[in-house]
Amino acid sequence: MSTTSDWTAPAFVDRHLGPNSVEQKTMLNALGYSTIGELAAAALPHGLAFEHAPQLPEPLSEFEVQTRLQELAAKNVQKRVFYGQGYNDTITPPVIRRGVLEDAGWYTAYTPYQPEISQGRLEALLNFQTMVSDLTGLPVANASLLDEATATAEAVGLMSRVVKKGRRVVLDSRLHPQVLAVAAERARAIDLEVEIADLSEGLVGEDLVGIVLAYPGTEGDVCDPTDVIEGIHSRGGLATVVADILGLVVLKSPGELGADIAVGSTQRFGVPLFFGGPHAAYMSVTDKIKRQMPGRLVGVSIDEDGHPAYRLALQTREQHIRREKATSNICTAQALLAVTASMYAVYHGPAGLCSIATRVHNLANQFAGLLRTSGVNILHEHFFDTVTATVADAEAVVRKAAAAGYLIRAIGEDKVSVSFGESATIADVPVLASFFDASGELPEPDDAVLRGFTRSGDLLSHPTFNFAHSETQMMRYIRMLGDRDLALDRTMIPLGSCTMKLNPTAGMEAISYPGFANIHPYAPESDTKGWQELIAELEQWLAHLTGYAKVSVQPPSGAMGELAGLLAIRRYHVAHGDEGRDIVLIPQSAHGTNAASATLANLRVVVVATAPDGSIDIADLDAKISQHGEHIAGIMITYPSTHGVFEDTVRKVCKKVHDAGGQVYIDGANMNALTGIAGPGDFGGDVSHLNLHKTFTIPHGGGGPGVGPVCVAEHLVPFLPGDAREVDPTQPVATGTGIPVAGTVHGSAGVLPIPWAYIAMMGSEGLRAATEMAIVNANYISHELKDHFPTLYTGENGLVAHECILDLRELTKKSGVTATDVAKRLVDYGFHAPTLSFPVAGTLMVEPTESEDLGELDRFIEAMKSIHAEIQEIIDGSIAYEDSVLAHAPFTAATVGADEWPFAFTRQQAAFPVAGLQRTKYYPAVRRINEAYGDRNLMCSCPPIEGDI
Amino acid sequence: MSTTSDWTAPAFVDRHLGPNSVEQKTMLNALGYSTIGELAAAALPHGLAFEHAPQLPEPLSEFEVQTRLQELAAKNVQKRVFYGQGYNDTITPPVIRRGVLEDAGWYTAYTPYQPEISQGRLEALLNFQTMVSDLTGLPVANASLLDEATATAEAVGLMSRVVKKGRRVVLDSRLHPQVLAVAAERARAIDLEVEIADLSEGLVGEDLVGIVLAYPGTEGDVCDPTDVIEGIHSRGGLATVVADILGLVVLKSPGELGADIAVGSTQRFGVPLFFGGPHAAYMSVTDKIKRQMPGRLVGVSIDEDGHPAYRLALQTREQHIRREKATSNICTAQALLAVTASMYAVYHGPAGLCSIATRVHNLANQFAGLLRTSGVNILHEHFFDTVTATVADAEAVVRKAAAAGYLIRAIGEDKVSVSFGESATIADVPVLASFFDASGELPEPDDAVLRGFTRSGDLLSHPTFNFAHSETQMMRYIRMLGDRDLALDRTMIPLGSCTMKLNPTAGMEAISYPGFANIHPYAPESDTKGWQELIAELEQWLAHLTGYAKVSVQPPSGAMGELAGLLAIRRYHVAHGDEGRDIVLIPQSAHGTNAASATLANLRVVVVATAPDGSIDIADLDAKISQHGEHIAGIMITYPSTHGVFEDTVRKVCKKVHDAGGQVYIDGANMNALTGIAGPGDFGGDVSHLNLHKTFTIPHGGGGPGVGPVCVAEHLVPFLPGDAREVDPTQPVATGTGIPVAGTVHGSAGVLPIPWAYIAMMGSEGLRAATEMAIVNANYISHELKDHFPTLYTGENGLVAHECILDLRELTKKSGVTATDVAKRLVDYGFHAPTLSFPVAGTLMVEPTESEDLGELDRFIEAMKSIHAEIQEIIDGSIAYEDSVLAHAPFTAATVGADEWPFAFTRQQAAFPVAGLQRTKYYPAVRRINEAYGDRNLMCSCPPIEGDI
Repeated sequence: MSTTSDWTAPAFVDRHLGPNSVEQKTMLNALGYSTIGELAAAALPHGLAFEHAPQLPEPLSEFEVQTRLQELAAKNVQKRVFYGQGYNDTITPPVIRRGVLEDAGWYTAYTPYQPEISQGRLEALLNFQTMVSDLTGLPVANASLLDEATATAEAVGLMSRVVKKGRRVVLDSRLHPQVLAVAAERARAIDLEVEIADLSEGLVGEDLVGIVLAYPGTEGDVCDPTDVIEGIHSRGGLATVVADILGLVVLKSPGELGADIAVGSTQRFGVPLFFGGPHAAYMSVTDKIKRQMPGRLVGVSIDEDGHPAYRLALQTREQHIRREKATSNICTAQALLAVTASMYAVYHGPAGLCSIATRVHNLANQFAGLLRTSGVNILHEHFFDTVTATVADAEAVVRKAAAAGYLIRAIGEDKVSVSFGESATIADVPVLASFFDASGELPEPDDAVLRGFTRSGDLLSHPTFNFAHSETQMMRYIRMLGDRDLALDRTMIPLGSCTMKLNPTAGMEAISYPGFANIHPYAPESDTKGWQELIAELEQWLAHLTGYAKVSVQPPSGAMGELAGLLAIRRYHVAHGDEGRDIVLIPQSAHGTNAASATLANLRVVVVATAPDGSIDIADLDAKISQHGEHIAGIMITYPSTHGVFEDTVRKVCKKVHDAGGQVYIDGANMNALTGIAGPGDFGGDVSHLNLHKTFTIPHGGGGPGVGPVCVAEHLVPFLPGDAREVDPTQPVATGTGIPVAGTVHGSAGVLPIPWAYIAMMGSEGLRAATEMAIVNANYISHELKDHFPTLYTGENGLVAHECILDLRELTKKSGVTATDVAKRLVDYGFHAPTLSFPVAGTLMVEPTESEDLGELDRFIEAMKSIHAEIQEIIDGSIAYEDSVLAHAPFTAATVGADEWPFAFTRQQAAFPVAGLQRTKYYPAVRRINEAYGDRNLMCSCPPIEGDI
Repeated sequence: MSTTSDWTAPAFVDRHLGPNSVEQKTMLNALGYSTIGELAAAALPHGLAFEHAPQLPEPLSEFEVQTRLQELAAKNVQKRVFYGQGYNDTITPPVIRRGVLEDAGWYTAYTPYQPEISQGRLEALLNFQTMVSDLTGLPVANASLLDEATATAEAVGLMSRVVKKGRRVVLDSRLHPQVLAVAAERARAIDLEVEIADLSEGLVGEDLVGIVLAYPGTEGDVCDPTDVIEGIHSRGGLATVVADILGLVVLKSPGELGADIAVGSTQRFGVPLFFGGPHAAYMSVTDKIKRQMPGRLVGVSIDEDGHPAYRLALQTREQHIRREKATSNICTAQALLAVTASMYAVYHGPAGLCSIATRVHNLANQFAGLLRTSGVNILHEHFFDTVTATVADAEAVVRKAAAAGYLIRAIGEDKVSVSFGESATIADVPVLASFFDASGELPEPDDAVLRGFTRSGDLLSHPTFNFAHSETQMMRYIRMLGDRDLALDRTMIPLGSCTMKLNPTAGMEAISYPGFANIHPYAPESDTKGWQELIAELEQWLAHLTGYAKVSVQPPSGAMGELAGLLAIRRYHVAHGDEGRDIVLIPQSAHGTNAASATLANLRVVVVATAPDGSIDIADLDAKISQHGEHIAGIMITYPSTHGVFEDTVRKVCKKVHDAGGQVYIDGANMNALTGIAGPGDFGGDVSHLNLHKTFTIPHGGGGPGVGPVCVAEHLVPFLPGDAREVDPTQPVATGTGIPVAGTVHGSAGVLPIPWAYIAMMGSEGLRAATEMAIVNANYISHELKDHFPTLYTGENGLVAHECILDLRELTKKSGVTATDVAKRLVDYGFHAPTLSFPVAGTLMVEPTESEDLGELDRFIEAMKSIHAEIQEIIDGSIAYEDSVLAHAPFTAATVGADEWPFAFTRQQAAFPVAGLQRTKYYPAVRRINEAYGDRNLMCSCPPIEGDI
């Protein structure tokens, strides 16, 4: 043993990287390089790298990082939360917290684009849609949106698309302030005129696309909006109701009231406050407008055997297909939290939810009664869970509550509201009353408070909400669904552009620390010092890593980060008198979301061609610049490009656009190829967004949460997203400032301990090592498969960046086997497919990430070679495509174990094509899904248990 | 909605019980009763129930219970732990904490008696054995023992069995005090003479069965015991070395030193301090004595296809087979913690462990150097991680440390030791030194400290410790192994006498609270107030529930609870001058452990016959009483009996034994049929043990942790287990007091929040409801299967208690199908088998527990009926037994998917005999295991990766 003192704690970087030093040597040998640094230098264009490594603290061990996170959590003050305003005290059932929120099978899963290996989370999301549809009384719900404020903005957009003739929208002044702020500004961004009026007092005005009603209002008041809704309908407009999800358990549903659209948050269905997010918002609509609805929609279809099977429906509506014709940029959208909320409904069922809602209401009701009998003025006669009183000095009352450990809300100078949540008890009522100097015997709840407002008819009568009320049943249901899905905890997910890397448990555990999870977003700063410190550090670290001046973590998804960045560009030009700059150049190969976000920022999209080598066509860029000159707001490029190569022209492109007066937006989607080595702000960008759920290890959660920080150079700092609560919604946001893109200033704050921990544990050197390893891994796969599936684009030295596009088009031509066939066939080998036909149709884009070890890479390579041999058999004429294993993949346990075997290949070939599967075999729950059938026969809530579909 | 105020929080009891009210009605209808109370009353003998319900607090909700547990945890003071004495600061890797300790798949699994569905945890336990064998340098290790103190006692017992001629044992005075206390007293209990001597000074004396050496000593000193070991060998005795598992990473192994046996704790391999337990102890031995080794032994065998497969080896050695010939009562033994420790070794690997051990040593080394240069007297020249210094006032130094947040150990009045653990850093050294008024520049580590003591040769070179060092690999390895096992999170485990019920997550989560997990067992009382309060409450609640005067939770397993109870009886008689009372009556149908524990308490066993109806044969009891009269120490009965019925003679039996001067031991194994309704202390018992891992919801953990509290009537209170640290090991424990049965006063304290939470959430009424529901569920199964598999024993009204014995003997006679065949066949239906051939050969004992809902019960009934039909085919002559699906079950995915199908039945019949399996199918990792092969070719460490076996 060594007895010197030069030891250190085990470095986390060695846990994070897949290949160990021996494996690294093997791979470098295969690639013909002697060190990783040499290979990375050959891959990266000259002059791209930072001159000095980004300044980060010395790396911490897992233990040190958790110690520090515990200290930070302890700096936040946990009060009894009666604040409301869209974020409510709730109880996460432990079986759901442990089984879903804290289970790697659930949180490391990808968005369910490959439905055959996603039947578990698709069922959970279908439950979510069924729950929303039932509670809102509207037939079609999506799964899901980012928060209540942005969901309202999406509803306004939807109304304006459906009702083409109006140009005004009326927002209820009773909406929560942050909802008003975000919805108003997003409406203005698409050229709507916004009026804010108290809709409980009726509707006036014409030329309306629609109205948005608060139900209840921010002060807790419940009104009957039937007349107002009839009013807007008679004017040809639509009605959106922003509804409290727990309130809907007892109140008349928006559908019953005549609404066309309902939106809101499902946070209070068991999702922690998380200092503002992530929480799943919902949207449901009438049948008539379902095809215009934004967001992900789970539908029921059938598989090759005719069995019911779930998958994402109507995908042609989505931003990545519609690009600049898209009307929403929603993609990643809080799936993990939607699953949590749906499980909460499944677990409690109608009776349980009813009991919770009734309990919450009765407490509020009795509290109001007590205040009234003590002579306190209660503002509203009808309310669900929130009671607002007029007081002499609101701040004084709030201070008194704070001293007793309660968080309540001041509204202006003379109103205080108290909002009851799930953990409130009868013992809280007199304590709360004492802050208002009220006391006395507790009255019985007063029936009159909700008379005439209550829901009638069945509540969540579908069997899915009525079978799993014991903890054992719930535990097994969660496990059964989780088992149907293939997530990172069982296999590499080699998804190009999605960076499915390790999500370190040391960071994952921290998001459950009560000191982080139980903090209300609007708690006073003195109660959130730990959060402030953590977020400030993270934003600073990200600024160093990207080479920008400042970062905001507010955007709750990558797409929202894009929108925030584009709005910053647009507002910068406007502030400088360049109103005419409204064109954004987007390369042909860009993510579809780029174009969609540009549309939402009211920018026109002009496409720049791609050269044969996959890089931006410089000649076409020149042409577009000279053509559009002074109208150019900027360019959006992805670096390294979506073709997975480092283009050596990037600085040139930046310079050309800058010279034309435009700004450069560098999409950070591929930041995993740069982190620690180069920063887009350093090599020419003015603004970027990151995807913390890619490069910075927030798990994908089966389709969210995502976090999409926006990073800007010095001159754009004033245009970073503002705080929705500080915005006056009646006026356009002042020139020279930023626009809020989420309801809370830090967006999905709750998951930020994950990237914080990751960066803290990796340090600057570790992050560089990860990036280099990611490049080595991608090149190794590209190299090993070159004779079977050639890589479409490479850089100067024949190297790729962190991903490679495998070109199948020649094979398809010869054999009829499509990239989709290969993707489905990989399921039989126990893999999630690579990215399919993006950015080039007929290809598979593979991104192994640095976290995959050589064994797993080789397992993938073996599978791909084996599939190649299967294709070769068709080419050789040994078997017809229609009869081949590829045309029929994947295979379920039931198919393989059936007595009938109608295929031209053997069972062994179908299910055990390579030896490694003998002992550890994953079977999908369904066979290949018929996408067209599902879209033709759209069904987006749980099917009847024994019905035909 | 209701607007009255009579609402309550959702009651946990409704989460805990499987069947809802509708299902309850259905079952009662089938059984012909109108209420549960009516059925329970019919099942229970008259006069058995409590007159008054046990006094427990009003039930809390999950949220309330967790709030209270957080408060209790916050009352414990978490210091930097440098205390040592067998319990060390360690870091649980987050990926292992989340993946194993907090994962329902791992913690709800049963002991791997059914190896086909237990290959995951068997592999993990084999890794444990391989790790222990490698580190100790001895070829055969078990998995595992209860704690270091009892492991040492087991080693003494083993030496005395192997070396038949000696009657003395020498224990090293350098052993930890608690180890000395437990080992000495357990040795005396089996009539060995105990000498305690400083074995670092050589060996004297004759007539020795063996010696037990400390390695290192409790003060940290490392000595070379080679001469002493040679000395004992030359006298014909054996040598046991009690070794620190982390020390063995750098020190010469016990095997290298010539030892025959090594024992110790593996706590510091990543298992939290847990206020003393649960932790897995280890034992390894030479090849020569392996067949005498106590405890569970995992071995490698082959399955029906000839593939390697793991299973428990040499089971005929075990207590449940050998009964009164048993030499140890170890059964449940900390499997979950052994898995954790083994995963720690797999994850860190040899290099990682070496780095941790070196780091820990170097810190101690530098600390000692610093103290020496400051003139402090360091007691020992050679040490690993613990430094002991002489000081003027030990308590003053410890107080100073405490004030700075450090926990260090005073030894007597003038010695203080500081023991370095994994989280210690170089920054701790000067702080620690300051408590000794030492300061100055930190010296380099001194090579001389371990010169001549270090290990040579390979360390953990087996591939199992060298493939999974990245977190991704570890996460997947844990998941892959977990997936091979069937645990409660996927299916009912209807194991008679094992009570596999829900383990509520609300309680499970609490054991990870740092305020519980990170507390050293010997921390001062002022630092452990939360623990004290929780344990005192739990012990009191259990006393109320059992009808006894007092309870001790010290016994870390049910078997140790038995031993503690029997020791109490024995010592009671001795204290009353009845030395001659040394016979314990045990019914024929008793758990084998009963007899084994009696042997360990040095009591003779006399068997009482069982009547044809399964109850105790009263005539035979009378005969035995009159035959043995004044020699009768007592009787051990199980109630309800192991036949699953409430015998109405229980009070009569108690009276007869009492009249004969004996004490009545009522085994609490079946307490799930009594809790809340009746208490053994109330209806005639003097002492009982409970199994908190059965009735009180501690999960089985794949074979431990268990907790076996001992409960006694007033007159036996003085004989409850004492505190090992307060015992003078040189003298027999004083007459009139109790004997410690574990190294710490509260045994496996770490898991006690689970039963605490369970009782707190259920309350008296809830517990009664659970018991009644368990009785209904068992009777429902018995009733529904009566025409296919008749229940062997029933009580007066044709009812069973909480379990039923299905009699297969007639079917076996007619068809050749054995109970084992049925057990294996149930795997194909996705079930863990019921208890096999206990207490009656050729039967299956089914205990559904109250947590299973009607759907799951019906799924089991459907499977059993389907199996009956398969048996009927043989009886009808449609197929020969040898060709039947039953003779070949279970079937793996590889078998079912193979192209060859050599069977006389179809694939469908093999794998999908009922429709429900089509969508959710569990395949075992191996086919039926050849038990005999494995015992003939004993291999108890990991096989070579590609070797033949």
